[in-house]
Amino acid sequence: MLIDLRSDTVTRPTPGMKEAMFSAPVGDDVFGEDPTVNALEEKIAQRFGMDAALFCPSGTMTNQIAIRLHTGPQREVVCHQHSHIYLYEGGGIMSNSMASVKLLEGNLGKITASQIAAAINPDDVHAPETALVSLENTMNKGGGSIYTLAEIKPIHRLCKEKGIKLHLDGARLFNALVETGENPADWGAHFDTISICLSKGLGCPVGSVLLGSKADIKRARKVRKVFGGGMRQAGFLAAAGIYALDNQVERLKEDHARARALGEMLGSLSVVNEVFPVATNIVIARLEGVSPEDFMKKLAEKDIRSVKFGPDLVRFVTHHDFGNEQLEEFGRRVKEI
Amino acid sequence: MLIDLRSDTVTRPTPGMKEAMFSAPVGDDVFGEDPTVNALEEKIAQRFGMDAALFCPSGTMTNQIAIRLHTGPQREVVCHQHSHIYLYEGGGIMSNSMASVKLLEGNLGKITASQIAAAINPDDVHAPETALVSLENTMNKGGGSIYTLAEIKPIHRLCKEKGIKLHLDGARLFNALVETGENPADWGAHFDTISICLSKGLGCPVGSVLLGSKADIKRARKVRKVFGGGMRQAGFLAAAGIYALDNQVERLKEDHARARALGEMLGSLSVVNEVFPVATNIVIARLEGVSPEDFMKKLAEKDIRSVKFGPDLVRFVTHHDFGNEQLEEFGRRVKEI
Amino acid sequence: MLIDLRSDTVTRPTPGMKEAMFSAPVGDDVFGEDPTVNALEEKIAQRFGMDAALFCPSGTMTNQIAIRLHTGPQREVVCHQHSHIYLYEGGGIMSNSMASVKLLEGNLGKITASQIAAAINPDDVHAPETALVSLENTMNKGGGSIYTLAEIKPIHRLCKEKGIKLHLDGARLFNALVETGENPADWGAHFDTISICLSKGLGCPVGSVLLGSKADIKRARKVRKVFGGGMRQAGFLAAAGIYALDNQVERLKEDHARARALGEMLGSLSVVNEVFPVATNIVIARLEGVSPEDFMKKLAEKDIRSVKFGPDLVRFVTHHDFGNEQLEEFGRRVKEI
Amino acid sequence: MLIDLRSDTVTRPTPGMKEAMFSAPVGDDVFGEDPTVNALEEKIAQRFGMDAALFCPSGTMTNQIAIRLHTGPQREVVCHQHSHIYLYEGGGIMSNSMASVKLLEGNLGKITASQIAAAINPDDVHAPETALVSLENTMNKGGGSIYTLAEIKPIHRLCKEKGIKLHLDGARLFNALVETGENPADWGAHFDTISICLSKGLGCPVGSVLLGSKADIKRARKVRKVFGGGMRQAGFLAAAGIYALDNQVERLKEDHARARALGEMLGSLSVVNEVFPVATNIVIARLEGVSPEDFMKKLAEKDIRSVKFGPDLVRFVTHHDFGNEQLEEFGRRVKEI
Repeated sequence: MLIDLRSDTVTRPTPGMKEAMFSAPVGDDVFGEDPTVNALEEKIAQRFGMDAALFCPSGTMTNQIAIRLHTGPQREVVCHQHSHIYLYEGGGIMSNSMASVKLLEGNLGKITASQIAAAINPDDVHAPETALVSLENTMNKGGGSIYTLAEIKPIHRLCKEKGIKLHLDGARLFNALVETGENPADWGAHFDTISICLSKGLGCPVGSVLLGSKADIKRARKVRKVFGGGMRQAGFLAAAGIYALDNQVERLKEDHARARALGEMLGSLSVVNEVFPVATNIVIARLEGVSPEDFMKKLAEKDIRSVKFGPDLVRFVTHHDFGNEQLEEFGRRVKEI
Repeated sequence: MLIDLRSDTVTRPTPGMKEAMFSAPVGDDVFGEDPTVNALEEKIAQRFGMDAALFCPSGTMTNQIAIRLHTGPQREVVCHQHSHIYLYEGGGIMSNSMASVKLLEGNLGKITASQIAAAINPDDVHAPETALVSLENTMNKGGGSIYTLAEIKPIHRLCKEKGIKLHLDGARLFNALVETGENPADWGAHFDTISICLSKGLGCPVGSVLLGSKADIKRARKVRKVFGGGMRQAGFLAAAGIYALDNQVERLKEDHARARALGEMLGSLSVVNEVFPVATNIVIARLEGVSPEDFMKKLAEKDIRSVKFGPDLVRFVTHHDFGNEQLEEFGRRVKEI
Repeated sequence: MLIDLRSDTVTRPTPGMKEAMFSAPVGDDVFGEDPTVNALEEKIAQRFGMDAALFCPSGTMTNQIAIRLHTGPQREVVCHQHSHIYLYEGGGIMSNSMASVKLLEGNLGKITASQIAAAINPDDVHAPETALVSLENTMNKGGGSIYTLAEIKPIHRLCKEKGIKLHLDGARLFNALVETGENPADWGAHFDTISICLSKGLGCPVGSVLLGSKADIKRARKVRKVFGGGMRQAGFLAAAGIYALDNQVERLKEDHARARALGEMLGSLSVVNEVFPVATNIVIARLEGVSPEDFMKKLAEKDIRSVKFGPDLVRFVTHHDFGNEQLEEFGRRVKEI
Repeated sequence: MLIDLRSDTVTRPTPGMKEAMFSAPVGDDVFGEDPTVNALEEKIAQRFGMDAALFCPSGTMTNQIAIRLHTGPQREVVCHQHSHIYLYEGGGIMSNSMASVKLLEGNLGKITASQIAAAINPDDVHAPETALVSLENTMNKGGGSIYTLAEIKPIHRLCKEKGIKLHLDGARLFNALVETGENPADWGAHFDTISICLSKGLGCPVGSVLLGSKADIKRARKVRKVFGGGMRQAGFLAAAGIYALDNQVERLKEDHARARALGEMLGSLSVVNEVFPVATNIVIARLEGVSPEDFMKKLAEKDIRSVKFGPDLVRFVTHHDFGNEQLEEFGRRVKEI
């Protein structure tokens, strides 16, 4: 039995989800006529109390569209130095939007309003104009760490005051919300745009949704077209999203419980120096006395997959296809190393 | 009964295709592990005798990736002034690749080697460097007109000689090939990259494939990522492509026969001044005495859909969901106008 | 004696102009402290009744800054297909601003409001947004042809109505104004931005000025910085501009008179099929029975320089260093060919 | 008497330099015919043992051209987080070249080969390709700190081995060379491109030169054109550069001596916590108990100008117009604060 903990993107749809996909009515979404895509967009916009939504092939696309909406040449994005938008989207901030970045440090991948305030450029010919703050919740490189709404509010206030847009890379936002119990609509009220992945913990095969105002989503549709993200009978994919929103949100808590258990198992290993606090479904272990490459090789020999996450870090992500049976088996195999 | 002739993108998958989609094995294609995506890419690359292929969400994306591969700032694309890449891809040549365009005129949307030779910029600081020639086959704005291989060869020779790349927007290339009987591999031998749509005449719900050398497709994978086109369990969509290549290529001839019949029906109307020569599945009618808007409104009252294609032009496209029954019904309704 | 008619950019400053340059007070213009640059900017803004001006190293820079101000990714510039901004600025519309172009045809390089109206893109995901109309006066490729204010007014009205910006590439605007007698301030009232070259007919060694609103010129200063056009003690160059505005505007009429005489001399040659109407200081001759290369070679043997301007066209430009003596000498030498 | 220590860009040309400027022969440099520009380019290329050079209006332009030559979309520049190219060029890395940045920390603004080695991205779809390392010598934000050739060599070796280009922002390179006594040609041998400012310590009014291979400088000429940096009779400016290279290089040592004296004067003030080591002509003082704004205001009341250089930092730059008399006067006035 392969235990694949590289990412929560590796899941395959459940029978119920496949049934929903299979039976979905579809149409040509480039003409705006796919009823299932339209239903998904309305459903998720409503849940977050936002005007409109746009279904896209990936979270990279929803983030990159948001960055294009809010920035441009000689404009700057402020974000944590370990943000997905900076590290893992191929240089898209620059190549898709010609925008600059100001990279902040911060505990467990999180940044604060006072840091952001200090990072705003003066109105001067030498510096690009600070145009966008982008946060990530949960924060992948922070070990799935959570921003609470209380942390967001002062950032939101600062951005409003300075005329700076605020985007949330909410690829794993539902992981945060099921833990905090906060209301999606309260989050919707504090951001200009939010991107949410369907193909991570929610278990869908493909897709991400961008949320925003009517005007922003209208422009987003044009950006999606030029990036090549306009799909035809996309309803088959959107149907999985609707199913997940109805059936697979609450179960994220199970992933978190298993992640905590998995973190304890790892923490007991002699080669593991520390495990980042496990807040959701991501477990990052800092190694000592062994390189990530060697440790991962040993795991691979036991049919366990993980990813290197820094010079001495390894990441494990729990997900729908990692149940209690897999967890126990993981425990057994790890002990043998 | 709605008769939708706006585009061949509006088709819904057949039962056989749906069966193939939902029984396909899938994996995470961003990790290169979706077996069905890999099988589709190998199958189509082999058919065209090219090294490698990349599955993408749309034909706009495969074209835009090719343009990015071959151009860049201060470099220029030569193409017909009515090319899809210039007219219908949102300004992507410029916004995705910072490249300039040289727009040529030409009969039925086609251009010749001598026109291209005259359009190559001198090596001078004032002009961008001519880097790419892009052709479209069949040519949408030319009424589905066909380039034969004999027309391609001198263009290919010129490009080789001048060190200019040659791309084919083959969104409807199979429509051309079933008419001419030419060999896909002979086409593969004459282009640096070819993009082929699965969601037009081939009847798939979503997708397009880019063909090229190993090195180009490796780079294309990076461009796809930054545009946000990397999908996870994309095998459900790719399976439709495999099914179409096996079962739905030859039937394009039926679309062409029906297009010719439809062209004759239109030609007999008093408000139709001329019908472009019908070479494949596209019929363009030039109106007189009535505006496209008014004519299309009358058609719409009879539940027939079409698209405006110029100040006095209307386009009709035949496809898998437009059979003989629909054709006859079209004839009846049109007479009533 | 070399007779250099390649361009009006080849002039060397007169003794009076050099004296003005030499004695100008200077400061660091990046800090906004060069008094001579400031004086030039105020003087020319005032003459055109516009808010503000910005001194730049070249006309390409002033045009490219204007395009950046008014466009961006997925936005489009409408201009004549022979515009300097499209043909001779290295693909800058695309590489500096990621903007698309819509190229119009038109007699003697001029376009009309009705053509522009027909070229405005619909609000649709497939097409970039029409954002800017750019005109050129006088029109280089039109043989120095002149737009009158009467021709501008309907274009200005259309742009206002549609929310489209209007830029004037006025590299040789003073050549037009001395002929028509129109008031610079009336021109200033009809454009969002105007660029004016000092180094063409006005005879300065280096420089161009961009005119616009306070807000636009503030942003222009930032774009100038990022293009690398911020110069330090630029007052030496600006002084030449002030001198030219005071002393060398009216004399452009002499260039025009000599151009008309030169056009007649060329028209009498057997190898010249036609001479474009000579409106200002540019003379374009269409050859027959001889290639531009061969004709120019013969001229070069007589120490006369010109430039090729199309497959059968040669261009001659009169300027400050081409006086009556040179004109007569030109006539003598041309007869000998 | 105003004592302006904001930058070494504020100098005005000496009588000798002005004489050289206004007696220079000039021509149209866009046609490559300005003899003085050509002479400057040859002279400086020869001094650094490099193939070719290009005269530009500013150091921002020479740096930005180099970045464009060596990078592009989805490619990355590695540099110190306080580099001029990142902090003070308006976001040009991104808006001119669509390139990403990897920002390193390092003592006195300098980075090492091992840091760079660790910063090279893996060959993976998620990250841009590491394409360029850019160093700055002397390093402005490091207090005019100097890289020695011994520090460059391992970086050069690493870049060669990895196929990464190496650029030097040598805006103040001559300040380093007069201190170390190293040979310009040895520096030329270790970089793909070098940019050198004429308008800083060398005392020219305007200009910077980019050095590189013949092929790179040919392409640079095209980039200069599209940025709008092609000037006509630029020889007036280039003449100042030739004069400076002949007469004003060695005297940079005097600026350094005065900077050291000035550093000591500042260090003795109670509000100055520390002065960065003074290696060349830049003095950075860290304040305590007073904000930069308040300290600079007090200096301004004494007719002394400086610039804020961080939350608690103030920068002073010595230059040609700051002689012994000014130094003594500075000492007197500072004591009175």
